Amino acid sequence: MTPFKLTDELLEEIRQLIAEKKNAGLQAMMKEFHYADIAEIADELEVEEATYLIKLLDSEKTSDILAEMHEDIREAVLKNLTAKEIAGELSELDTDDAADIINELPKELVQEVISEIEDRDHAKDIVDLLRYEEDSAGGLMAKELVKVNENWTVTTCIKEMRAQAENVTRVHSIYVVDDEGKLKGRLSLKDLLTTSSKTHIKDVYIPKVDSVNVNEKGEEVAKIMSKYDLEAIPVVDEIGRLVGRITIDDIVDVIREEADKDYQMAAGISQDVEVSDSIWILTRARLPWLILGLLGGLGAAAIMGTFEDMISKHAVLFFFTPLIAAMAGNVGVQSSAIVVQGLANDDLKGSVRNHLIKEMLLALLNGFILAILLLLFTWIWKGAFATALAISLSLIVVIVVAGFIGTFIPLFLNKRNIDPAIATGPFITTSNDIFGILIYFWIAKMILGI
Amino acid sequence: MTPFKLTDELLEEIRQLIAEKKNAGLQAMMKEFHYADIAEIADELEVEEATYLIKLLDSEKTSDILAEMHEDIREAVLKNLTAKEIAGELSELDTDDAADIINELPKELVQEVISEIEDRDHAKDIVDLLRYEEDSAGGLMAKELVKVNENWTVTTCIKEMRAQAENVTRVHSIYVVDDEGKLKGRLSLKDLLTTSSKTHIKDVYIPKVDSVNVNEKGEEVAKIMSKYDLEAIPVVDEIGRLVGRITIDDIVDVIREEADKDYQMAAGISQDVEVSDSIWILTRARLPWLILGLLGGLGAAAIMGTFEDMISKHAVLFFFTPLIAAMAGNVGVQSSAIVVQGLANDDLKGSVRNHLIKEMLLALLNGFILAILLLLFTWIWKGAFATALAISLSLIVVIVVAGFIGTFIPLFLNKRNIDPAIATGPFITTSNDIFGILIYFWIAKMILGI
Repeated sequence: MTPFKLTDELLEEIRQLIAEKKNAGLQAMMKEFHYADIAEIADELEVEEATYLIKLLDSEKTSDILAEMHEDIREAVLKNLTAKEIAGELSELDTDDAADIINELPKELVQEVISEIEDRDHAKDIVDLLRYEEDSAGGLMAKELVKVNENWTVTTCIKEMRAQAENVTRVHSIYVVDDEGKLKGRLSLKDLLTTSSKTHIKDVYIPKVDSVNVNEKGEEVAKIMSKYDLEAIPVVDEIGRLVGRITIDDIVDVIREEADKDYQMAAGISQDVEVSDSIWILTRARLPWLILGLLGGLGAAAIMGTFEDMISKHAVLFFFTPLIAAMAGNVGVQSSAIVVQGLANDDLKGSVRNHLIKEMLLALLNGFILAILLLLFTWIWKGAFATALAISLSLIVVIVVAGFIGTFIPLFLNKRNIDPAIATGPFITTSNDIFGILIYFWIAKMILGI
Repeated sequence: MTPFKLTDELLEEIRQLIAEKKNAGLQAMMKEFHYADIAEIADELEVEEATYLIKLLDSEKTSDILAEMHEDIREAVLKNLTAKEIAGELSELDTDDAADIINELPKELVQEVISEIEDRDHAKDIVDLLRYEEDSAGGLMAKELVKVNENWTVTTCIKEMRAQAENVTRVHSIYVVDDEGKLKGRLSLKDLLTTSSKTHIKDVYIPKVDSVNVNEKGEEVAKIMSKYDLEAIPVVDEIGRLVGRITIDDIVDVIREEADKDYQMAAGISQDVEVSDSIWILTRARLPWLILGLLGGLGAAAIMGTFEDMISKHAVLFFFTPLIAAMAGNVGVQSSAIVVQGLANDDLKGSVRNHLIKEMLLALLNGFILAILLLLFTWIWKGAFATALAISLSLIVVIVVAGFIGTFIPLFLNKRNIDPAIATGPFITTSNDIFGILIYFWIAKMILGI
């Protein structure tokens, strides 16, 4: 398979076809593309062009295209469709994707769109999903699944499953419920293929099945599914009734989003933003961390002000403040990143004390090597051995303290059930800048006198 | 389902049982646990204790436990097992997991272990997998899959599949091949459940099937599978023969590892390290970036040295250098992180020029707000309006330049096919420190004279 690649030429060709309303040509071309590729194309078109394309193609395909498109572009395209047209698209989608799209619609349109969905069971299922938090198991699950009653035989089961499977894109496990709809266990495809047809389900099903509560957090569901290598997990309500199913493709998205969120947090970007968001949204996500950095810088300036009397004799000390601040910041970020990642991946075992000791030793080793390099450079450059020594010795202490702060703060926040990811990036950099410079001048003053 | 939680009490209890060799009690307890949970337990035990546990339990379960365990601990435990025992474990594992474990064994043991595997087909399949790069499609795939010949009928097909399915944990799609073993298409479970039994496969299979070449990069496979929402993808060799299959659970690991790698790179940690790695490995991963930071700091000190004549009249300028460096660094990291993430997620559309303009505008807006805050603070604090103005105006320029560098460098590296992730974190921070301080003093000198 040669992977699809959206070139500028292809895009131009499609634009041309749309401009000239060459419908047959467009339809023939799109027939060859996967819906995910057409979604990629639509994301690059103008809203009017994308709308034209969506209206032209069959709703069986366009529903999937819409589900894969960028949220903002989809919203704009949907504004150009009637409630009936939107309902037509939603009818083709699985309930979870349909519910996600409905959540983006203007409130006044929701009821009209739902009332236009012809399959009332499908509409009912979608409405059921609307009441869950987006980031909960309920918000991630779909209503489509294959379930069989424990009192059926394999023959009845296969017959019923054929009907149910018509509505389910991927079957995964077959869930077994009792007469009240409570989840009892599962039948694997393998069981189904290897069991004689007159057996009762009750006698062959696997009574152990992993499931999650409908209110479980998405992040937690992702951890459970990837720990136990599950490709689908049933979702049960408070009294154990089977209400839906989450599949691994939705979890892949959750994992990506979680990773992106932590990465952005470490880079000093709060809120989940994308490169395509507006300048205003991007500013709101970045400015708070920059202001924090500004306050830190003012703090550092204030500290240096108190050591002003050293400036006449030891001006060179002041030249090294960005170096000290940078090293304190870098070491802090390194330590905190590895702790935050260890916590996120549940890799961080053992006692807090051991980790702190290990990070201290690591910082000491790094600090020692860096201090020797700095000593040699500064001595050769400035000739003043005492100053060079003072700067280098402070560097070691600064690095050890920075490593301690970078390790301790995320561990401490995690103990208090605060997301440790906030303690990465600018937060650590800023506090380490201040501590670093304070320690630096204090030690230098001790060594050099006034 | 109440999620498994490894408490200190539970761990202590297990240790006690092992110390007292209470085998029956241990076996009964472990029977209740999922293998992934036992792997979590084993990771926390001493190597001797973990070995005792592995030797005690049935190899059907221990093979999965070993596959889930932490690499280092597994390696240590395997050292305590004979070649025959290791072969017994590998026999129970899917070929991909078995090949991964063999890759960790000391070279001199590999041949002996392989020769001890009783099922020669399984051994052959494992050996086949050993020749692929760990991070390629070949290195990720397993040989276990269900394939049917296009010339069979549905009845033959179901019969053959029952046999094949015995060896396959999850069936996913049923692949269709021709007499030469070339991949022709697939049969979905749905097709199988809804087609009459005398039909020939050739008449019902879906001739379109996504596949990847055995040499494709793991990262690329992850992109394809998540873009097209695939739960399994067949792998073909150079002439199109079906050689293996990659499932989504392996891809989830690839996605996590990619995200972790980018995150660590942004935090100034090269190489893929874990919190549990040795101090020496952790130092090697961190020290190069710290040395880079040190050189940057020396550069900044050298620049400040050239402006030494300003120190007597405008000492306060020197107090603000950590602030300027911090702001330049933070803005640069924010800009580069969003670009690197956009590139990694294929979200970054449109021209490079547009992105640069957008980031410039964003930097200008942030810079303006921050400069006003800084101006007010400094004016009130120091009383010197001219100095405060000089510092604030330079801050705006520094921030805009930092935003430009942070956006441009990763885009540039990406164009040249160099991983843009290296341009995050310390790299950007360091170069922005130097540029920032140079620009800052230069502008301040222009405004303030001498």
